Amino acid sequence: MPATPLDSAIYRDLLGDAEVGALFSDSAEVRAMLLVEGALAKVQGAMGVIPEVSAQAIHRASLELQIDPAGLSAATGVNAVPVPALVDAFRSQMQAPEHAQYVHWGATSQDIVDTALMLRLRQVLVILERRLLATTKALGALAEAGADQPMAGRTYGQTATPTSFGVVVAAWGQPLIGHHAKLAVVRGDLLHVSLSGAAGTLSAMGDDGPAIRASLAEALNLADPGGSWHSTRDTVAGLAAWLTAVTGSLGKLGEDLVLMTQSGIGEVALGATGGSSTMPQKANPVQPSLLGAIARQMVGLNTVMQGAVLHRQQRDGAAWIAEWLSLPQMCLLAARALAIAETLVPQITPNPQAMARNLDDGLGLIHAEALTFALAATMPRPKAQEAVGALCARARDTGTPLPELARANHPDLAASVFAPATAMGQAPAEARAFAAAARAL
Amino acid sequence: MPATPLDSAIYRDLLGDAEVGALFSDSAEVRAMLLVEGALAKVQGAMGVIPEVSAQAIHRASLELQIDPAGLSAATGVNAVPVPALVDAFRSQMQAPEHAQYVHWGATSQDIVDTALMLRLRQVLVILERRLLATTKALGALAEAGADQPMAGRTYGQTATPTSFGVVVAAWGQPLIGHHAKLAVVRGDLLHVSLSGAAGTLSAMGDDGPAIRASLAEALNLADPGGSWHSTRDTVAGLAAWLTAVTGSLGKLGEDLVLMTQSGIGEVALGATGGSSTMPQKANPVQPSLLGAIARQMVGLNTVMQGAVLHRQQRDGAAWIAEWLSLPQMCLLAARALAIAETLVPQITPNPQAMARNLDDGLGLIHAEALTFALAATMPRPKAQEAVGALCARARDTGTPLPELARANHPDLAASVFAPATAMGQAPAEARAFAAAARAL
Amino acid sequence: MPATPLDSAIYRDLLGDAEVGALFSDSAEVRAMLLVEGALAKVQGAMGVIPEVSAQAIHRASLELQIDPAGLSAATGVNAVPVPALVDAFRSQMQAPEHAQYVHWGATSQDIVDTALMLRLRQVLVILERRLLATTKALGALAEAGADQPMAGRTYGQTATPTSFGVVVAAWGQPLIGHHAKLAVVRGDLLHVSLSGAAGTLSAMGDDGPAIRASLAEALNLADPGGSWHSTRDTVAGLAAWLTAVTGSLGKLGEDLVLMTQSGIGEVALGATGGSSTMPQKANPVQPSLLGAIARQMVGLNTVMQGAVLHRQQRDGAAWIAEWLSLPQMCLLAARALAIAETLVPQITPNPQAMARNLDDGLGLIHAEALTFALAATMPRPKAQEAVGALCARARDTGTPLPELARANHPDLAASVFAPATAMGQAPAEARAFAAAARAL
Amino acid sequence: MPATPLDSAIYRDLLGDAEVGALFSDSAEVRAMLLVEGALAKVQGAMGVIPEVSAQAIHRASLELQIDPAGLSAATGVNAVPVPALVDAFRSQMQAPEHAQYVHWGATSQDIVDTALMLRLRQVLVILERRLLATTKALGALAEAGADQPMAGRTYGQTATPTSFGVVVAAWGQPLIGHHAKLAVVRGDLLHVSLSGAAGTLSAMGDDGPAIRASLAEALNLADPGGSWHSTRDTVAGLAAWLTAVTGSLGKLGEDLVLMTQSGIGEVALGATGGSSTMPQKANPVQPSLLGAIARQMVGLNTVMQGAVLHRQQRDGAAWIAEWLSLPQMCLLAARALAIAETLVPQITPNPQAMARNLDDGLGLIHAEALTFALAATMPRPKAQEAVGALCARARDTGTPLPELARANHPDLAASVFAPATAMGQAPAEARAFAAAARAL
Repeated sequence: MPATPLDSAIYRDLLGDAEVGALFSDSAEVRAMLLVEGALAKVQGAMGVIPEVSAQAIHRASLELQIDPAGLSAATGVNAVPVPALVDAFRSQMQAPEHAQYVHWGATSQDIVDTALMLRLRQVLVILERRLLATTKALGALAEAGADQPMAGRTYGQTATPTSFGVVVAAWGQPLIGHHAKLAVVRGDLLHVSLSGAAGTLSAMGDDGPAIRASLAEALNLADPGGSWHSTRDTVAGLAAWLTAVTGSLGKLGEDLVLMTQSGIGEVALGATGGSSTMPQKANPVQPSLLGAIARQMVGLNTVMQGAVLHRQQRDGAAWIAEWLSLPQMCLLAARALAIAETLVPQITPNPQAMARNLDDGLGLIHAEALTFALAATMPRPKAQEAVGALCARARDTGTPLPELARANHPDLAASVFAPATAMGQAPAEARAFAAAARAL
Repeated sequence: MPATPLDSAIYRDLLGDAEVGALFSDSAEVRAMLLVEGALAKVQGAMGVIPEVSAQAIHRASLELQIDPAGLSAATGVNAVPVPALVDAFRSQMQAPEHAQYVHWGATSQDIVDTALMLRLRQVLVILERRLLATTKALGALAEAGADQPMAGRTYGQTATPTSFGVVVAAWGQPLIGHHAKLAVVRGDLLHVSLSGAAGTLSAMGDDGPAIRASLAEALNLADPGGSWHSTRDTVAGLAAWLTAVTGSLGKLGEDLVLMTQSGIGEVALGATGGSSTMPQKANPVQPSLLGAIARQMVGLNTVMQGAVLHRQQRDGAAWIAEWLSLPQMCLLAARALAIAETLVPQITPNPQAMARNLDDGLGLIHAEALTFALAATMPRPKAQEAVGALCARARDTGTPLPELARANHPDLAASVFAPATAMGQAPAEARAFAAAARAL
Repeated sequence: MPATPLDSAIYRDLLGDAEVGALFSDSAEVRAMLLVEGALAKVQGAMGVIPEVSAQAIHRASLELQIDPAGLSAATGVNAVPVPALVDAFRSQMQAPEHAQYVHWGATSQDIVDTALMLRLRQVLVILERRLLATTKALGALAEAGADQPMAGRTYGQTATPTSFGVVVAAWGQPLIGHHAKLAVVRGDLLHVSLSGAAGTLSAMGDDGPAIRASLAEALNLADPGGSWHSTRDTVAGLAAWLTAVTGSLGKLGEDLVLMTQSGIGEVALGATGGSSTMPQKANPVQPSLLGAIARQMVGLNTVMQGAVLHRQQRDGAAWIAEWLSLPQMCLLAARALAIAETLVPQITPNPQAMARNLDDGLGLIHAEALTFALAATMPRPKAQEAVGALCARARDTGTPLPELARANHPDLAASVFAPATAMGQAPAEARAFAAAARAL
Repeated sequence: MPATPLDSAIYRDLLGDAEVGALFSDSAEVRAMLLVEGALAKVQGAMGVIPEVSAQAIHRASLELQIDPAGLSAATGVNAVPVPALVDAFRSQMQAPEHAQYVHWGATSQDIVDTALMLRLRQVLVILERRLLATTKALGALAEAGADQPMAGRTYGQTATPTSFGVVVAAWGQPLIGHHAKLAVVRGDLLHVSLSGAAGTLSAMGDDGPAIRASLAEALNLADPGGSWHSTRDTVAGLAAWLTAVTGSLGKLGEDLVLMTQSGIGEVALGATGGSSTMPQKANPVQPSLLGAIARQMVGLNTVMQGAVLHRQQRDGAAWIAEWLSLPQMCLLAARALAIAETLVPQITPNPQAMARNLDDGLGLIHAEALTFALAATMPRPKAQEAVGALCARARDTGTPLPELARANHPDLAASVFAPATAMGQAPAEARAFAAAARAL
């Protein structure tokens, strides 16, 4: 019964993500929690906190036991966490009560749930990083190829001055370089083991607590936070903020592509487009629209994650459970957005004819600023602006192109004033600089 | 692979809702879309728009065909809507091309998807209303029973003046009466058939379009919108706003219960509480915490739905798909919150001893306002406020109760000044007025 | 020191609203609070709760006293509410302590602040309604005038089938009719006097409390809530939801206008457009962009207001103060959006030539659906869809218009297939129906 | 006419921030824009792009001219940016048209507005950092002082196990250390000059563009972005995310303090508290409530800023103007929250008696986990949990303290089992570790 199309068989190929989805499956969650319990026992056995033979038995069982997720549901419905039921099932299935009693020794549910989450988030971030890099590099190649391709720059939807397709692409990719750089910070803040016991003091482990936590961190290839983060959720919220930032930048790419593929504009073609149930001619920019939809959803879910930082006292059920409602889908949506982008970008094909047509709307008004600066060489700039304003009005009224009117009135205008190469300014260079930076990642 | 605990086998009993969940299952969605296609054909057959024999064949098939949701996924991944694949599967499974060609005659994908959604939302609203009424009535009974039970009113967490438990309950329930009243408005705005064709003009149905839409509405027991609502999403956003309002009011109930059950306060006991994996004494207010978590999530998702009202042109993929990401889980979360409340409220048991203890903190400072007004009968009120302020300070310094100090200084004070019945003011009456209103629903 | 451009001298003409702004000025707030205190005393005097002569003195003073807002600041910084300082100033300025002691008798700060807010919101809603009606009626006139004006319907930015300009306008206006209808509900829920005393029980007024509240409501022309709404904020949140819905619908108008005015599309011209500091030709759709910006801001602020429904216990400082941070600017932004729309709509001028150009992209692919249904009269529809799909591809490949190819292959095609009047379907009728509904408001 | 209490004379001392507010005043904005225009001319003069004598005249004028913010309003209302009006006023006031024509040479409005914003944000961040450090250090001192002070740890509002006041304080402060560390990243990403011309290509400056930008950056003590960031708003959104994270962490501090100061809990006293207009005894935790209110508002506004990353094409009026509506108040609110925290933290006074009382609720149930582990030394842990669970129930039923029951049943229990020093586990050490880290900042 899917609450979201991400979990739907119908929408699986539209919005699902098999690779990251596998990390958020119920069985993956159970598996990860078992892994944490097993590693904890092993570490505690090695340090003599629990009998080594029990530790070995628990660790082995943690790898071998099959615990049915659905079997945890009834008790989870009462306790709000699956760990009491998991520990019960673990102990009972072990059929060795003398060892089983040492399962979950001194830990609390939140330790297990949060550490098991971190194990999977570590893998999620590897996948996201791979896709982010691939997307950025694909944008780099596209920017390089289109560096000298003139097209109309648009502000407020209106043609402004000429720019290059390559630098438009660079604006999609540049933020991704920044997001990639920040991923290291997010990872460093986030990927910690949690082991703090009932109310964050690790009291049930006596003096060994910090050493056990450090060893557990090492065993699980996570970092040791050096304390409790049960109720300091800024690091989890930091992941949400990063995911939101990434999908926001991809959302701009999506929005721009929807605009560039509009009928009557058609400046780029996309590889895959969507058909209609009734209109045979339709080629809808489905993938860009998905990027827009995902970006919006992420912004909404991010409010929940940022609000969950107001986590009261030593554990706040309302705040913690709110994280569960938002974070998994944020990871999956970000993964999906990156997968879409990775596939989409190499298929973006600029249409130079359409770009030329939009650049020159028949009136050449896009050259108005350049003409102003050309005229300002021989007259005060305010006068030049006024003169060009008048010429623009005349062009609109008479349908005569601005360049033609300009040359008629100012016969000694340099030939290059209206040349695309001049008009694009720094755009080609900036496109190439981005391409180089993307290659260097 | 659950993107949300609502779809998880582990968390099913904590956050899932079987009854409403069944309406959002993949097969329910397919079934609803088939129902719409079948009803459309039947109506078109009756009006002679398509051959009646084909209409009957399609209608019959719409009830009998089994279409596998997963089989729609690949094409849905391309087209962003499942309808083209559904129509293909329908036609192909019918094995009667002469009739099958009339499937989906003149409609567009959005007509089918949105109408199929409305069919299910109608049922969702019936369920929600039932739970809302039950919760409100249970609160009414609780308010009635507790109308004369004194407890400390608190503002900013500080005891303010005495109030009654019943009126505290009334404050939880009063808004629900309002939400129930508004449900009729939401239903009236929302539960429309959608039948507007490719770009909202219904052009493929010729002059019969409006009559077909009206008949389809009647056949499906939905209202006829009299036009297209493909791109006017205020009614769908209105549902989201209502769901958010309902869960917000339940969230206040949850927050208040978390505060009232605090160790050291303990003014109410709850029926079911959650245990800890390591602390045998724990009785966590799990259900109230869930209400808080759900309310937060709804506020976040509501931003997506309100933002989706900015639906561009005649169909905006980004805005429309964003609705799919948010609305189903909003319905499920609201349903779950109401189910929790319906179960929780009858189990709320006030603890008069604890209430009395919090009312009288040993110093009786909660009576300061009442004392002021009593003294103001014989001295100017500013002077009375000053005098009582001084007595409060003395009470704090010496540990002597304020009433005792007051009587020592003002021997002729009326006996009733510190009596709970006086002190509760209108609280009992307001509690009973709410109870009566809840009974009358 | 403006925290927002709404309070800035620079941006006053862009984002400010003088008429509604006057209602949120500091002096208007002080004036409204004085009005409430004055009316309360008058009512209490008439009922014999306080001496009538004092009541008259207070009431007169409430109309005459000049209290400097800035003088309240220091104490407000300590108490979080301006009322203690206001009452002090009131009493002190009256210079008649024998009467002044009866100021604010039995009320609490929240009573005064909330009632004073309602007095101003009543006026705000009158202004908003006037603008909403004017905008809706202007849209009605525009829809009527453009009912038969063909233009390209667009889904996903792609031309879909022909529609009419009038029905595009109707989609902007139709939701406004709904919002107007709901305004009565919002008003009925919202515009209550608040008079509940320290913790909501009105205890300091004895048995007279309800009668005093009823009389106060009558005196102030507000409704009597019949109880306390100190901590039930659903009605205030309901106003926020309504304001968000209104600006969301105006946001769609804004988004569509930005798209329709794009260079190369140019389907409408606007009256006032913005210039650039460096590009003489620019005519930016500033007003539509403002509608988009305001809609986004409102969605964000609405999260705060909906979250503030989780108002704990009998008064929750955090939740209540959060309302202050969001609600005034929401009112001002909604007012500004409506003022923009009221001015903008009458200046929208359709450009039939541009509409025709976008309708016929040279290939006539927009007629593909209509052609399918025409062919389906003589062949199975799937075959017709296939045939039209092939013709569309041929049209794209060869640059030959689809109608020409169609007539060549199907010489007996009806002449009307490609005629705009047929193609627009129900659009003209729906445009006129909206226009009639708008006129009838 | 204040749209927000931040701009109100009444609420100035409650929510305003004079120091940061001065940076967002209208005159500060005009001053900053003039500074940018002046520095641009100076740089362009030095590089020979404009005549040096004109550059000097412009630079001098930029420091001397007085431009009335209100005078820019009418044109800003038309153009949506104040720069055209500012440039006009600048040129006209210079009264030297031969020089004035070189004002704003090759720049666009967004260059000036964004760079002027960065100049002020640089100062804002200096102020915020100072307050953040002071708050963190004050928390460090408080954590150190309270490291060994036992108190009840609470999860779900229920006493869980003992913890120390110092580690509770550390949980407030630890995230601030992280936020401080990230401030360097935010600064590095954000504080760039913007100089990209009309559509981001800097074309009007010819080949000198990049060198001019680099020099301008140096002159203004900002970084050179090496390209255009007109439409890549991730860095501005990154500031919003950081501000939200900071106020979120302060919001937890606020929420915890509201809970700790509750009547009946009273574990800490605050320096300044708020009074009531009618209740002489009230001492409301106003400052903590403000922190909660501000955190909520920030989360809402952050949605706008994150959504504004979907900035279309080369300039998107709706997205850009949405930033103006949110970012200034976010800066001011974050500044205010830090100012509150800086003042509040040194005034937090723990109440050891109240902490002891809440630690020992008369039944000592808080020791249940510790007792389990003590018993588990001699019996299997599940049996120990069961035994302790039974003892807890007995304690509740009979009112006999758990320690007493435990000793009666298990006479050889170690004396230290119920000792606070043991029970606090790692809490004192973690409190000291935080204190050391705070000192080291």
